[in-house]
Amino acid sequence: MAGSIYGTLFRVSTWGESHGKGIGVVIDGCPAGLSLDEEDIQRYLDRRKPGQSRFTTARQEGDQVEILSGVFEGKTTGTPIALEVRNTDQRSHDYSNIMDVYRPGHADFTFDQKYGFRDYRGGGRSSGRETIGRVAAGAVAAKLLERLGVRVFAYTSAIGPVSIDRSRMEISKMWENRLYMPDDIAAKEAESYLEDMMARRDSCGGVVECVIEGLPAGVGESVFDKLDAALAKAMMSIGAVKGVEIGDGFEAAVSTGSQNNDSFCIDSAGHPAKRTNHSGGVLGGMSDSSPVVIRAAFKPTPSIAQPQSTVDRSGKEREIEIHGRHDPIIVPRAVVVAEAMAALTAADLLLMSMTSRLDRMEEFFERMRRK
Amino acid sequence: MAGSIYGTLFRVSTWGESHGKGIGVVIDGCPAGLSLDEEDIQRYLDRRKPGQSRFTTARQEGDQVEILSGVFEGKTTGTPIALEVRNTDQRSHDYSNIMDVYRPGHADFTFDQKYGFRDYRGGGRSSGRETIGRVAAGAVAAKLLERLGVRVFAYTSAIGPVSIDRSRMEISKMWENRLYMPDDIAAKEAESYLEDMMARRDSCGGVVECVIEGLPAGVGESVFDKLDAALAKAMMSIGAVKGVEIGDGFEAAVSTGSQNNDSFCIDSAGHPAKRTNHSGGVLGGMSDSSPVVIRAAFKPTPSIAQPQSTVDRSGKEREIEIHGRHDPIIVPRAVVVAEAMAALTAADLLLMSMTSRLDRMEEFFERMRRK
Amino acid sequence: MAGSIYGTLFRVSTWGESHGKGIGVVIDGCPAGLSLDEEDIQRYLDRRKPGQSRFTTARQEGDQVEILSGVFEGKTTGTPIALEVRNTDQRSHDYSNIMDVYRPGHADFTFDQKYGFRDYRGGGRSSGRETIGRVAAGAVAAKLLERLGVRVFAYTSAIGPVSIDRSRMEISKMWENRLYMPDDIAAKEAESYLEDMMARRDSCGGVVECVIEGLPAGVGESVFDKLDAALAKAMMSIGAVKGVEIGDGFEAAVSTGSQNNDSFCIDSAGHPAKRTNHSGGVLGGMSDSSPVVIRAAFKPTPSIAQPQSTVDRSGKEREIEIHGRHDPIIVPRAVVVAEAMAALTAADLLLMSMTSRLDRMEEFFERMRRK
Amino acid sequence: MAGSIYGTLFRVSTWGESHGKGIGVVIDGCPAGLSLDEEDIQRYLDRRKPGQSRFTTARQEGDQVEILSGVFEGKTTGTPIALEVRNTDQRSHDYSNIMDVYRPGHADFTFDQKYGFRDYRGGGRSSGRETIGRVAAGAVAAKLLERLGVRVFAYTSAIGPVSIDRSRMEISKMWENRLYMPDDIAAKEAESYLEDMMARRDSCGGVVECVIEGLPAGVGESVFDKLDAALAKAMMSIGAVKGVEIGDGFEAAVSTGSQNNDSFCIDSAGHPAKRTNHSGGVLGGMSDSSPVVIRAAFKPTPSIAQPQSTVDRSGKEREIEIHGRHDPIIVPRAVVVAEAMAALTAADLLLMSMTSRLDRMEEFFERMRRK
Repeated sequence: MAGSIYGTLFRVSTWGESHGKGIGVVIDGCPAGLSLDEEDIQRYLDRRKPGQSRFTTARQEGDQVEILSGVFEGKTTGTPIALEVRNTDQRSHDYSNIMDVYRPGHADFTFDQKYGFRDYRGGGRSSGRETIGRVAAGAVAAKLLERLGVRVFAYTSAIGPVSIDRSRMEISKMWENRLYMPDDIAAKEAESYLEDMMARRDSCGGVVECVIEGLPAGVGESVFDKLDAALAKAMMSIGAVKGVEIGDGFEAAVSTGSQNNDSFCIDSAGHPAKRTNHSGGVLGGMSDSSPVVIRAAFKPTPSIAQPQSTVDRSGKEREIEIHGRHDPIIVPRAVVVAEAMAALTAADLLLMSMTSRLDRMEEFFERMRRK
Repeated sequence: MAGSIYGTLFRVSTWGESHGKGIGVVIDGCPAGLSLDEEDIQRYLDRRKPGQSRFTTARQEGDQVEILSGVFEGKTTGTPIALEVRNTDQRSHDYSNIMDVYRPGHADFTFDQKYGFRDYRGGGRSSGRETIGRVAAGAVAAKLLERLGVRVFAYTSAIGPVSIDRSRMEISKMWENRLYMPDDIAAKEAESYLEDMMARRDSCGGVVECVIEGLPAGVGESVFDKLDAALAKAMMSIGAVKGVEIGDGFEAAVSTGSQNNDSFCIDSAGHPAKRTNHSGGVLGGMSDSSPVVIRAAFKPTPSIAQPQSTVDRSGKEREIEIHGRHDPIIVPRAVVVAEAMAALTAADLLLMSMTSRLDRMEEFFERMRRK
Repeated sequence: MAGSIYGTLFRVSTWGESHGKGIGVVIDGCPAGLSLDEEDIQRYLDRRKPGQSRFTTARQEGDQVEILSGVFEGKTTGTPIALEVRNTDQRSHDYSNIMDVYRPGHADFTFDQKYGFRDYRGGGRSSGRETIGRVAAGAVAAKLLERLGVRVFAYTSAIGPVSIDRSRMEISKMWENRLYMPDDIAAKEAESYLEDMMARRDSCGGVVECVIEGLPAGVGESVFDKLDAALAKAMMSIGAVKGVEIGDGFEAAVSTGSQNNDSFCIDSAGHPAKRTNHSGGVLGGMSDSSPVVIRAAFKPTPSIAQPQSTVDRSGKEREIEIHGRHDPIIVPRAVVVAEAMAALTAADLLLMSMTSRLDRMEEFFERMRRK
Repeated sequence: MAGSIYGTLFRVSTWGESHGKGIGVVIDGCPAGLSLDEEDIQRYLDRRKPGQSRFTTARQEGDQVEILSGVFEGKTTGTPIALEVRNTDQRSHDYSNIMDVYRPGHADFTFDQKYGFRDYRGGGRSSGRETIGRVAAGAVAAKLLERLGVRVFAYTSAIGPVSIDRSRMEISKMWENRLYMPDDIAAKEAESYLEDMMARRDSCGGVVECVIEGLPAGVGESVFDKLDAALAKAMMSIGAVKGVEIGDGFEAAVSTGSQNNDSFCIDSAGHPAKRTNHSGGVLGGMSDSSPVVIRAAFKPTPSIAQPQSTVDRSGKEREIEIHGRHDPIIVPRAVVVAEAMAALTAADLLLMSMTSRLDRMEEFFERMRRK
């Protein structure tokens, strides 16, 4: 198992390397009848494209998606949806300086150990381009969720030491800056921090926050396949993520029960609700009908233009300098990746939640038979 | 899918509720030939037992494990290993005050929404007793790992605001205090913090740190089934965990590439090694041969002896007071649970790593056929 | 993976050996709200018990099932249902004559090769007693299916060369003879054939036929997880099964398109129906609303009281005689096993079928939210 | 789950419809280091192409495969291998006569019921073209198996009532006739039977036999994931297959224990062997080191040029005539499909068999660490 398949009912199988012929994904398990065209997916892919600002690489990558199967007359058919993005940049580069050397912070060493072998062209499968498959599939999951009343969105909540100020935060503002920060003052500060990083030929990390709204209560399977557990895996599977939090996260560890417990109340519509959301929308591993809030910490881009000590395949210590343009930060382009992973996870568990109660199933099949 | 099955090759299926007849687990996929007796498992279970200190509930739970299958003449047979702990405390309690009321911070509300139904006896499946199945299976995984050169251990790294001091830390010290903190000064401080919490009828959270040593490089499947992603799910699936970190975790988000990248060097044995371990032993989702370091943040125990606002099943706002003895902190008893989940995850991915390279497989089958 | 877990949404995990402490199963994914007690399961287990007639072994096995979890106040809770049957016959037998010898037709040799090791006590996990876990779980699946309008039943269609005559067949007749044949004339003939076998210290095989009625059209997942494919695996996974057919089976291979195609018509209720059922209720791997008909061919019991040539563990040729009472035929006791496997398979795919269409899902979640 | 993913460790995810843009497959879990080029796959695809004889459709389908990922410098990298065949025939046909009508023996009705929707263009996903993905992936599995000492092959053993004569059978002969029958006399007879079918505008079925040689003993997981159970599912998942047998299959049901048991002996190389192979190479669900023999019965092609009674989507009875050229028999083109499914199944279970014994695993990891 190479680990490139995700999900149980809404399953995706991604493929492709940085400098191979293309990148793609097959979605197995999307219900029939969902309107879907290439533009639905392209919108998501465009958000992860490089070259959007001076903090992201200037390479022009087309990343045009093509739907190859599973859609007929504008609607999903229930059979596998194959999505493909052909790589346009397959020119042969000069990799001689990194070919036999393990770049610090990259997967070069571990890939070589695992596979006896390494695709040195731009990282191969460990490249950030791998996420194209996730984002394309996530776009479909998001569209499905929307039809079922669930909305997923993500934004940058911190760039290095610069965090958004929640008192100022407005989600719509994230579209007004290239860092996808929903706080324009923080965004400006972050930009100048990034300029500084670039000047120092260094890189930095940051935090992406993701919100899932509208999940009915009870989504998530108890014990191992809890909603928060599944989301944690989803986020941590994104290259460069080193930490994940739900709700108050690590803050909860220094809180007290009396502060951290969210009291229940009856809302204006007469439904049970919580007065606060320290839990981040999850209780006992199941959605509690408050917004699900998840945060992912990204490490700094490992490719930096400073000399670094390392070793090569033959077991000799070496110094390396990584040339070429590299983003000083991954986070802005990763926002849509986190959103996609949350959408894939939520869709899968939402589908799974349909079979938890016999009364709902009886009704479902009775109605189906009556038609 | 109720979510109680974990793993792909080393699979465990847990069952049981707090006040039912018992708790247990079936392990499917443990290789044949591992020496195993009940004592191997009991040692782990005893570490999660309550009543070990004045900070854990005084209930006397026997929690004696019985091996029902899969072991013959002292060794595993390769077929399913069924482990069972009968509940000794099944007396009928008086649940009338919580039966119809959703306790804040508990899974009562979400269980009821999901299943149309709720086992009010001590939380049923959402009780901490559910972890008995994990720990019993984890003991077997740990024994298997040990035979394959891998060691897993965990300890308390923080209780509320009291963290261990890494300059003072000595792993062996964790056995000298009831909080499993490898720093006796911090342990004392934490004890007095806990006394304070109890006096205020409040509770607190904390952090468990877990280390996996001896994993060969390359364990973990690229893209979705990365080692760190699998560990994140493993930890977050433990009730009360709200955050997970690998290596520097959230600190990495405020670091820079030049600081966060671990330089490679050649160690005294002539093998590639890393000078630092900011990565927490994982690069590109695969073990990099440094120790794997993971941290889990636990929220405060939700059961507190203070009045709390909540709602009941009929949709009325209510006040609730939770009686009975409850741990002011979950963390010390959760240390072995985190260790068990790490062992289960590492064992599963270690088995899976055997099929990544044709050259190793060819050798394997040639040797098998020769015998 | 030891292969003892079955299903995707309705998952069962079986365990236990012939002469260990017990046999059991954990069901993960049974919806909440199903009435269930031990008697529901015992009824099924009693059908596979030996000692029911002079053609089955006289050993008295109690096989009393105990529900250990997942049922509260008489209804399933949605969490794992653990079922257990303790072995009552654990006396030490004398296995010295078979301990080191591979019995022809048994799994002794292959178990030893796979696990380096063999549980010689009554076959261990490869014993027919392994099916207790399947039958217990199947009883739960059958009860669930019944609530959803689906009925599964099985019967003996042939004993050695004696087949039922379909013109005479009456299902209710199967309960009137110990061979579970729905044709009393054939049953009598089969009985005298079996007497003859016993006199010759030989054994014979037979065929079990299983029918699933009431499945809505469209159950089964296209391509690999087809209904018929899943049923074929289910049946072939029963020890001693060597062939499986759906509908006309091998007869279809010698038929012609004009004969084998089932014409559609509109039935008296105004619904599409088929005039014939050569397809056995499956078209394109999905239920077509006709009864699903599956047949499984069982080989003769391998344990026979005649001398047989074989080899031992040390690589020497030997002669073996298998002592003790053994059924001259497996089939009558296997009828309920086939039924159980069909029920488990149908339940799993029925649950899965709920997510095939967006329109049905939209309706489902709208109704859920409204409540 | 749409059911288009197959396998646990060697997993394939197929996609594509008859008249969409293409057909393909992603292989996740092929070990790194296997030499692989497009020609390896094309050879298999060419065997399932139509237009090879006057009994198969004359459509010229190019079916040129392209490797899009997972291969670098001529060897597999351990990451997903994406294979794609673009459809060349996407011309718009006139489907008006079948668009709203359910063809007898086809999946039109069940697809419509399941998905609320039907791709009437050549059957969409239920078309025989779906098998391109299986065959392409099977070619890779076969190459992997070959490197590990395992050989899979298949041939036609019967066309309608014409079976091969085993006393005359020579495998190499199968390449000398277009029906892939390893008996040229039977092949000639079958050809004239087929001519007769065509003259009568009818179709017929047949049987494919598949052999797996060289599997070490012990491959297959006990209880549910037995080798024979997995193969049965593999075969039955091929459209048109209605029956599956291992070894003597249904003949075993009319045999006796004394005839059907295969005696063990010591072969000339000093290894345990079986004197006969009634078991078809499988005992207790595990390979017994004899050749694994499996047979699949195919129903007659449902598309026949005779008028047939059926119903349409609006619930009216109709008569239908299916125009266009259709194979009077599926079997010859299905031989390679059966072979591919056997190879996929054997590869998956062979990989899985590596983790059954601790002693072998200890040796494996010790050798890995030493290097």
